[in-house]
Amino acid sequence: MIGAGQLARMTHQAAIALGQSLRVLAVDPGEPAALVCADVRPGGAGDLDALRAFSRGCAAVTFDHEQVPQENLRALVADGVNVQPGPDALLHAQDKLVMRRRLGALGAAVPPFAEVLAPSDAVAFLAEHGPSVLKAVRGGYDGRGVWMEPTPELVAELLAAGTPLMIEKRVPMRRELAALVARSPFGQAAAWPVVETVQADGQCVQVLAPAPGLDEDRAVAAQELAVRIASELGVTGLLAVELFETDTGDLVVNELAMRPHNSGHWTIEGSRTSQFEQHLRAVLDYPLGATAPTSPAVVMANVLGAPEPVAMSVDERVHHLFARFPDVKVHLYGKSERPARKVGHVTALGEDMEKVRAKAALAAEWLSTATWADGWSVHGSPSPATSGTPVG
Amino acid sequence: MIGAGQLARMTHQAAIALGQSLRVLAVDPGEPAALVCADVRPGGAGDLDALRAFSRGCAAVTFDHEQVPQENLRALVADGVNVQPGPDALLHAQDKLVMRRRLGALGAAVPPFAEVLAPSDAVAFLAEHGPSVLKAVRGGYDGRGVWMEPTPELVAELLAAGTPLMIEKRVPMRRELAALVARSPFGQAAAWPVVETVQADGQCVQVLAPAPGLDEDRAVAAQELAVRIASELGVTGLLAVELFETDTGDLVVNELAMRPHNSGHWTIEGSRTSQFEQHLRAVLDYPLGATAPTSPAVVMANVLGAPEPVAMSVDERVHHLFARFPDVKVHLYGKSERPARKVGHVTALGEDMEKVRAKAALAAEWLSTATWADGWSVHGSPSPATSGTPVG
Repeated sequence: MIGAGQLARMTHQAAIALGQSLRVLAVDPGEPAALVCADVRPGGAGDLDALRAFSRGCAAVTFDHEQVPQENLRALVADGVNVQPGPDALLHAQDKLVMRRRLGALGAAVPPFAEVLAPSDAVAFLAEHGPSVLKAVRGGYDGRGVWMEPTPELVAELLAAGTPLMIEKRVPMRRELAALVARSPFGQAAAWPVVETVQADGQCVQVLAPAPGLDEDRAVAAQELAVRIASELGVTGLLAVELFETDTGDLVVNELAMRPHNSGHWTIEGSRTSQFEQHLRAVLDYPLGATAPTSPAVVMANVLGAPEPVAMSVDERVHHLFARFPDVKVHLYGKSERPARKVGHVTALGEDMEKVRAKAALAAEWLSTATWADGWSVHGSPSPATSGTPVG
Repeated sequence: MIGAGQLARMTHQAAIALGQSLRVLAVDPGEPAALVCADVRPGGAGDLDALRAFSRGCAAVTFDHEQVPQENLRALVADGVNVQPGPDALLHAQDKLVMRRRLGALGAAVPPFAEVLAPSDAVAFLAEHGPSVLKAVRGGYDGRGVWMEPTPELVAELLAAGTPLMIEKRVPMRRELAALVARSPFGQAAAWPVVETVQADGQCVQVLAPAPGLDEDRAVAAQELAVRIASELGVTGLLAVELFETDTGDLVVNELAMRPHNSGHWTIEGSRTSQFEQHLRAVLDYPLGATAPTSPAVVMANVLGAPEPVAMSVDERVHHLFARFPDVKVHLYGKSERPARKVGHVTALGEDMEKVRAKAALAAEWLSTATWADGWSVHGSPSPATSGTPVG
């Protein structure tokens, strides 16, 4: 796997069960996956020599991010490396203009959009479509590369800095959804239930599985759309289709990602097959795993670095969390805390979505900030007993 | 973790989620955990210098097997190393005579037993108790160190070879059970449902969770007994109490293990907290995790090396297994195949114990031998579609 972030880290956990040996390419030995993998090679995705050395002997080469130059991928393919997904597919997750044009040609609903080669292009688009969002064509991530108030001055500045740009109509929407599917080179595909992704400041903070109140027909349509995109684009491994549910209930494609995705972390405990295992099965061309949910309601909440440094150690925070919620599952990525940085996630499971969501939100907020949003007193309140036989 | 077998390998998977760094002590770099851990130190449990170098900087030191000399553990403790479980507790999992005497003193039901210092001890015991089994006091495992037909000649031979021996009445029994609990240094304990362990040739081949048809009062009594043993012996981390259910329905203690145990592999998918996560939580003195089952019926089946070499590669066997059973979870340990060697396990989950058991048995047998015990034809039968949206 090219990249050694938390996605590679969690893929390693899945690879262990499958008897596979995951090799990761890491820029820094302190990256999340480099801390826990036995086979770590140094280098970045921009370094073809490092990529070639890394790829030697791998049954398949895949990614935990999309920032791999096309020319390097094509060089690997020319060397005979089994790159999954291949560069032709991956391009659609790297270049938003290519993606928008292709999805438009496939008849998928996308917002009105245009390439921006000069400030006047943005001005004309705004005049025709009203409120719009400016996006970097390449390299955007977690709210970066997105500007909600495009002005001619901003456009001129970004173009002068060499940023390729596009503009897109802001879609009046109820919420964001995601349809996650896997597809193997053989052509088998499997879809998980469609989820709601709750955003704050341009970043996903919670994932609700399944998306509450989503009409069954619309959910199936979203799954079918994602499988069709995967098939038409030749995607192998995972494909996450980020969707807007408009205020009229229609589904519009926002972004594509071709790798394990934040919207699928809930599957580790919440589905019979996790997205990490499924990605490995898909890129290695094994038959895919069952995607049935293990619980009626599953909520994943990201643990983000707090705005201000927190005095209580992470270890002590984990202690208190375990004491209060013995059934919440914690995933820490081995990253230092910085404001809004994803340093881990928690997953809660149960029968009632609102209760499960409240629990996951409390747990994530506690791990982030060492404050209980509901005023729970750390020292004053009794810890609920662990289930089982609580004798000692 | 001292030892780098499959238990350490699966503990590493759990450690990753908790943000912990598991260091393993490995005799050989090809051991299951050494293949996948980032921090592998060379050495065996009998080498105090290696143990000391290994322990430096560890928050806690624990084991994936009991074959760690007492004097070495005591030396580590004297050095200030945080050894969990401590040597006083672990002794009861190392020495069957110490264990039997202690459990007898606690009032737990154990089979009649005696130390064997001479062939005449065995002869006298057999005369008094009838059919009995001879056991090595130390070092037995998976049917090794157990002799079902003790003769004076065998006893003399073993004693001459320096094997300390005991003899024990053979208990007429219906089946074997196991009660798995965890206990933290703080004193918190948690128990999983009592399971049935199905044996063949002295080795566990299947685990049924929960034990089918076990009376609720007896199950609770077994859990309470295990927690009491853990507490009285000062066990920290996991304690597996292997039990015989006699033909009158009573429960008699067979063995103790103080580490993650084969009887608990089902908890990876079958319980809210896996035994591997729980062992880490316990030895690090975190509050323990919820032990609620995730499914009404869970069956783990060991994948054993076949009696004869199998022509079909493991990889191809996995392919066919995934095609037939997309919902069976596979755990491979990275070990080469030898007859009866545990090279992996599978877990099946569902509503109906008999169906789940049949599926797990078929899957494990297939991975072992590349034969479907029910005559399923690899090439002639259609593969069931993966759940989700099977379009491609």
